[in-house]
Amino acid sequence: MTRDSYAAAGVDIAAGNEAVARYKDVMRLWRHPDQLEEIGAFGGLFRLPGDARRALAASTDGVGTKLLIAAELGRYDTVGADLVNHCVNDILVVNASPLFFLDYLAVGKLNPDVAAEIVRGCFDACRTHNCALLGGETAEMPDLYAENHFDLAGTIVGLVDLQEVPRKEDVQPGDAIVGLPSFGLHTNGYTLARKLLDIRTFGDALLAGHPSYFKDVRAIQVVAKVKAMAHITGGGLLENLPRTLPENVKAICEQSRWEVPAIFNELIKRGNLDHEERYRTFNMGIGYTLIVPLADAAKAIAAVPGAKVIGWLEARGTDEPRAIVHPARA
Amino acid sequence: MTRDSYAAAGVDIAAGNEAVARYKDVMRLWRHPDQLEEIGAFGGLFRLPGDARRALAASTDGVGTKLLIAAELGRYDTVGADLVNHCVNDILVVNASPLFFLDYLAVGKLNPDVAAEIVRGCFDACRTHNCALLGGETAEMPDLYAENHFDLAGTIVGLVDLQEVPRKEDVQPGDAIVGLPSFGLHTNGYTLARKLLDIRTFGDALLAGHPSYFKDVRAIQVVAKVKAMAHITGGGLLENLPRTLPENVKAICEQSRWEVPAIFNELIKRGNLDHEERYRTFNMGIGYTLIVPLADAAKAIAAVPGAKVIGWLEARGTDEPRAIVHPARA
Repeated sequence: MTRDSYAAAGVDIAAGNEAVARYKDVMRLWRHPDQLEEIGAFGGLFRLPGDARRALAASTDGVGTKLLIAAELGRYDTVGADLVNHCVNDILVVNASPLFFLDYLAVGKLNPDVAAEIVRGCFDACRTHNCALLGGETAEMPDLYAENHFDLAGTIVGLVDLQEVPRKEDVQPGDAIVGLPSFGLHTNGYTLARKLLDIRTFGDALLAGHPSYFKDVRAIQVVAKVKAMAHITGGGLLENLPRTLPENVKAICEQSRWEVPAIFNELIKRGNLDHEERYRTFNMGIGYTLIVPLADAAKAIAAVPGAKVIGWLEARGTDEPRAIVHPARA
Repeated sequence: MTRDSYAAAGVDIAAGNEAVARYKDVMRLWRHPDQLEEIGAFGGLFRLPGDARRALAASTDGVGTKLLIAAELGRYDTVGADLVNHCVNDILVVNASPLFFLDYLAVGKLNPDVAAEIVRGCFDACRTHNCALLGGETAEMPDLYAENHFDLAGTIVGLVDLQEVPRKEDVQPGDAIVGLPSFGLHTNGYTLARKLLDIRTFGDALLAGHPSYFKDVRAIQVVAKVKAMAHITGGGLLENLPRTLPENVKAICEQSRWEVPAIFNELIKRGNLDHEERYRTFNMGIGYTLIVPLADAAKAIAAVPGAKVIGWLEARGTDEPRAIVHPARA
């Protein structure tokens, strides 16, 4: 990152990377024999005991500081779906379909109306995916959270046939990158966005929902061979796209191939964000990517409104970047 | 509750009950067909698709404000095991064995050393249970948490044979209640305890670990028929014991049958807590209970050091309380 607006907003990306490195050191000490190799670390895969054919996929996520906007505006009906959809997308990357979800809601002061509205949001999004809201925990912790603050996290568990887990080996130079449109920041980049934008003026845009890409992906899989997928969350296209790609390919995207939602341009202008920073902090209009053979690309984008071919894969030399986004010409 | 020390400490039990009632209203709108009936709501049960014999059990929990003590004392090596063990015990109530766990760590300022110590605690407790630490999320949210504060929650998923899920119908008047010893507050009652005790003086006692009862329970099941179990968490014996009992029995405990750890007597004295309040806020020395036939009780307590027969079940009239603890004579 060439500039450090995000760090100035209080999020320390270097510390985050360091923590991840430490976690990896811990995980190296022992590994459960049924735990399968991580695929981009969007979610974990665990072989179903006594079942040679299937695995469970699981992922935990939080909504992040988008919650502070919801709290300030008193709008509690959207963050539940944000969270469930985020989790659904994370395990969709390994092709898993949701079984059940559990929420964790922590509040400074428990208001049953607000709590029920938040949980209702989770419930509705679960129901849309035929996913059970199997349980949850609500904790009132007056000394940990300000009275009107809350945190919301959740865990999803899904099921996948091992034969249908995408395999990096299938990915090749020449494959197309299909992008599915985002509808705003989703659940990432809010610590920076809150510093740059007035919450009341941009409230609707900032609370725009994090969509589920489940149906879109299933529709594309009917007509195209999907070799790899990525959920474009914190880290943007530059960090998320490569997570499910082999080391020997690089992803080339051209920003002219899709429209960047207006809110990102506002953020870029106000934060004077350079190209790299934009694409490492925000999704910039692409919420989910799929790698398909070039021959299937036209069918894939025809299957989902708004889907676009946003780039392609090329062979990658050892020291080359794993993902590049070419700016649109001014 | 006859007095309201806990409410005065900032935890609103009425609001908690109201939130739970609202959640139930939401859940009534739709139920996934593979979601099995709740058994005391310690954890959810979900029929494994394509497997008539087995179900997944899952539970989400947080450590609660015990975290504030850990943060103030700068001791980060115990809360991970507290959380994992809490979750293990919750799904043990339906007889499930852990498969995998995922953590959620939210911090005001990310210190990789601290984060790694916390996650290491989760990892070690998982490993003890042959349970994969399958994933997790670490979120840095400077405007939601104070710089040295953090929240820690987690989700466990386990597996159980449906035939081995305890059935309320087996429970009868005359059965014995076996109690397993606690080692302090475990993870409940800390918002009140922090008001009553000096953290630095009572730090060790307050951070005493939340144990796993997994091995103890498995040892008892070898020698005794276990008809029902309860994890004694928030709500104490009075609220947790009845959760897995049928409506037509009441649990009678005699406090003279076990030793109450010193920290509880200190809390009672300083908070001037009445009998009811003690047994609804704290575990008071019993961390986990098992209902066994009276004929198996002696074998059960012989199988686990510290296990005691703490009471028995009697027939219950419609308006009678579901659990009673008789005080020890002074």
